[in-house]
Amino acid sequence: VDLVDTPITVLRLLPPSSKHVVPKNLTFTVHSLLRSPLASSPRSMSLLIRSSYVSQFHTRNSKPSSFSDQTPSKSPFFSSFNHNPLINLVYKRNPRMQSLSFPSSMTVKSSLIDPDGGELVELVVPDSEIELKKKEAESMPKVKLTKIDLEWVHVISEGWASPLKGFMREDEYLQSLHFNSLRLKDGSLVNMSLPIVLAIDDQTKEQIGVSKNVALVSPQGDIVGSLRSVEIYKHNKEERIARTWGTTSPGLPYVEEHITPSGNWLIGGDLEVFQPVKYNDGLDHYRLSPKQLRKEFDNRKADAVFAFQLRNPVHNGHALLMNDTRKRLLEMGYKNPILLLHPLGGFTKADDVPLDVRMEQHSKVLEDGVLDPETTIVSIFPSPMHYAGPTEVQWHAKARINAGANFYIVGRDPAGMGHPTEKRDLYDPDHGKKVLSMAPGLEKLNILPFRVAAYDTVEKKMAFFDPTRAKEFLFISGTKMRTYARTGESPPDGFMCPSGWNVLVKYYESLQESDDSSKQQQAVVSA
Amino acid sequence: VDLVDTPITVLRLLPPSSKHVVPKNLTFTVHSLLRSPLASSPRSMSLLIRSSYVSQFHTRNSKPSSFSDQTPSKSPFFSSFNHNPLINLVYKRNPRMQSLSFPSSMTVKSSLIDPDGGELVELVVPDSEIELKKKEAESMPKVKLTKIDLEWVHVISEGWASPLKGFMREDEYLQSLHFNSLRLKDGSLVNMSLPIVLAIDDQTKEQIGVSKNVALVSPQGDIVGSLRSVEIYKHNKEERIARTWGTTSPGLPYVEEHITPSGNWLIGGDLEVFQPVKYNDGLDHYRLSPKQLRKEFDNRKADAVFAFQLRNPVHNGHALLMNDTRKRLLEMGYKNPILLLHPLGGFTKADDVPLDVRMEQHSKVLEDGVLDPETTIVSIFPSPMHYAGPTEVQWHAKARINAGANFYIVGRDPAGMGHPTEKRDLYDPDHGKKVLSMAPGLEKLNILPFRVAAYDTVEKKMAFFDPTRAKEFLFISGTKMRTYARTGESPPDGFMCPSGWNVLVKYYESLQESDDSSKQQQAVVSA
Repeated sequence: VDLVDTPITVLRLLPPSSKHVVPKNLTFTVHSLLRSPLASSPRSMSLLIRSSYVSQFHTRNSKPSSFSDQTPSKSPFFSSFNHNPLINLVYKRNPRMQSLSFPSSMTVKSSLIDPDGGELVELVVPDSEIELKKKEAESMPKVKLTKIDLEWVHVISEGWASPLKGFMREDEYLQSLHFNSLRLKDGSLVNMSLPIVLAIDDQTKEQIGVSKNVALVSPQGDIVGSLRSVEIYKHNKEERIARTWGTTSPGLPYVEEHITPSGNWLIGGDLEVFQPVKYNDGLDHYRLSPKQLRKEFDNRKADAVFAFQLRNPVHNGHALLMNDTRKRLLEMGYKNPILLLHPLGGFTKADDVPLDVRMEQHSKVLEDGVLDPETTIVSIFPSPMHYAGPTEVQWHAKARINAGANFYIVGRDPAGMGHPTEKRDLYDPDHGKKVLSMAPGLEKLNILPFRVAAYDTVEKKMAFFDPTRAKEFLFISGTKMRTYARTGESPPDGFMCPSGWNVLVKYYESLQESDDSSKQQQAVVSA
Repeated sequence: VDLVDTPITVLRLLPPSSKHVVPKNLTFTVHSLLRSPLASSPRSMSLLIRSSYVSQFHTRNSKPSSFSDQTPSKSPFFSSFNHNPLINLVYKRNPRMQSLSFPSSMTVKSSLIDPDGGELVELVVPDSEIELKKKEAESMPKVKLTKIDLEWVHVISEGWASPLKGFMREDEYLQSLHFNSLRLKDGSLVNMSLPIVLAIDDQTKEQIGVSKNVALVSPQGDIVGSLRSVEIYKHNKEERIARTWGTTSPGLPYVEEHITPSGNWLIGGDLEVFQPVKYNDGLDHYRLSPKQLRKEFDNRKADAVFAFQLRNPVHNGHALLMNDTRKRLLEMGYKNPILLLHPLGGFTKADDVPLDVRMEQHSKVLEDGVLDPETTIVSIFPSPMHYAGPTEVQWHAKARINAGANFYIVGRDPAGMGHPTEKRDLYDPDHGKKVLSMAPGLEKLNILPFRVAAYDTVEKKMAFFDPTRAKEFLFISGTKMRTYARTGESPPDGFMCPSGWNVLVKYYESLQESDDSSKQQQAVVSA
């Protein structure tokens, strides 16, 4: 699905100021269409900010109370990023967990946005207990994981799904399916739009019997962890699919790959893993956990983190957008906004560009200086892709809160794809950002919808689409880009940095030419 | 779907006491399995209470702070039901609306549970403006309503869907579809699980053009009201059906009757109706609005209102349950719990017993003394039936909050039916009450799950099923009851009062015998 089609309405990001600091428990929404007096062009990118403080249980993200004070050293907000030992804004609040699973050298001080539920979930067994736990697991009934199951183990164990502590039990599953959120014990809601569940078949269920705990076995046959105090309940695939995707049409990639072949039962419980999940594919150094990312943002003294989720190569339209976002955040008064360029690393459909190719392409883009390495962190988001549009984009945003991002960029038709059997988009391209902006549990996140970029044939570069001179813009669709790459033709100058483009050309050359031309229709350039 | 199949886990209703009065913003959940020392049998009906005060924006339902004070006159809670003119607990808070649409004689004082959003929505144009408004509407583009659309006009106009003020605009539709709730301006959530929408076809959309307001035309051709500041958006039927029903299987009654034949656009806006919706079917006196019900509860000095939703004849198992609930509420310390016996009056599927027959049957049950007329109000709930299980039961409960009920009885598989194409229940029979108990916006409602009743062949009466002597119980399914009625055979003594049974026999005799035996499989006795 291309990001290049319809311009979207955009709203200016207001500078934070004392009058926008809201009293506890009041919702405050900046929601007016404004021109930015600071913008170089009246049509340059504009943003929507929504700040809601619905419940006093939502720990507020620390924010500067005023930007009129121009002396950073006087601001209590900025000083907290200077590692002042007197300031103890430790985001990890559970002292027991910290002592168990954190080497003391990794204690993190930060005023980054709080993880959902207040503390980051981490489920790797401490070194001192591994042997005991492994031995214990050997005698438990075994549950064999698929590749995608293991990706979810990775996701849960590092706390991307905080406060979720394991695969969902039925109460969590039902709340996710019906409400896209989970209620915590204190009554507050966290967002949880995708059911994160583990399916088992009849035979495995029978083997488990009344056992309380099960061992989890990787596709390679290793025991990687355990699930404790398990609950087994029915896996109504039809209902799960209908409520997650809003269709039961055949041809949904995640469904065909992962749900249809799976068992008729779901097993929930508390997860423990024996060591961090690794893939040994030469890309593990890109796989920073939420804790590692938070530490890195802190090292770089970030006072704003904006996340960009993508599963496709980066072109100069994306770069324009990301650079423009940073500029706007600086104009708002943030001193050091850091970009989290966060490609999805789990399951993707067959015709998406593979992760290794994308990572090579992304690094060329950084080497080329299209994005500033000083203010950009490239890391892999380990989640598998559902292609579930408005439902999934909430997951993509929520997981980034847990990694410390307080701004989330959302484009046209996020996590969307073509309808598998009808000639239309599966989702209304505007629903993703609308649903995201209204989603329970995401009130503390600033949603940044973005405008469409296209190739400006006059300026000979990627630029925000200007409908008043629509004819001068060229929309380079995924299909067109793929055709360029396949035929060895170059895209227009300024579409993508040449070194990044070469990565794609090499990839497409290496592909066996396929007769299945229907598979050639997929988008490449969208985020 | 029968209510008689599996016993459900039941939890005792704890008496309210000072230690259960919760501080603001704290969630309190009574959730332990307990035997009632007061119950006549250790297996008699038990209940679950859940009291959550999630946000301070939820206006708390007034409750006695302690029941240790046995002198009603000293209790500030009970005195409010004695029409003490000094106590001004007026549930209708908007003075302007009150003066516009309430005859002064109908001003209601009550400490009943607050309607969602704090005030009851009422959208009937005041008498003084009717002529003007009608004239104005004549010049607006016309939208023709179906019978079911008109039922929704009825529902919205009387405030059953408070705080909804008209057919949903897209933001409301998306929140309903994805989150089963709507966020209010103060940040709090109200439950809203069913999309309450009005579909129009391409031609009507074209006729409306850029008009801001449209007139609503009844199936009989009368202009019944208008929709103002309209918004037209796409009607993605597949997504709506999948997310509402959790299936897109053909054969869903509401879908086939109402959605499939409808247009490809939805129109939302603010509703006004020119007079209360009437059906002239001899049953309008049963159709009390939420305002009228609240007044009636107040007249009867109710200090607890428990609602029983049903769409089928009442048998003695239902009566046992309702009488037992009242007994439990009295044991809790309530002085005058009133039962709202609330049959659904809108669209039902072809093989459900028609409304007029059910109302006749219900009145025989009351005449017969099976239910106490002094403490029972029989009224018609005007909503059409979706048969959407866990999604719909939230609507059924939420609407009763608006009518003043603070206790809601939920059985096995509420709003469920058989899967239209597979040989199984469409929904897990336990999901309804689970989803209901976790639903956002329903925290202030006390959910009362109930046990299964069956015919006790030893005691020769309907009784709560006792699994330890399962063989002595007879489950009289809908099919079996229908067979009794068709063949003129009587059901066992004590199954239903004879006068009520005769109503059903007469109805089935009047039915043309149908060859379509597949339609004979439907349940009759379930609630």
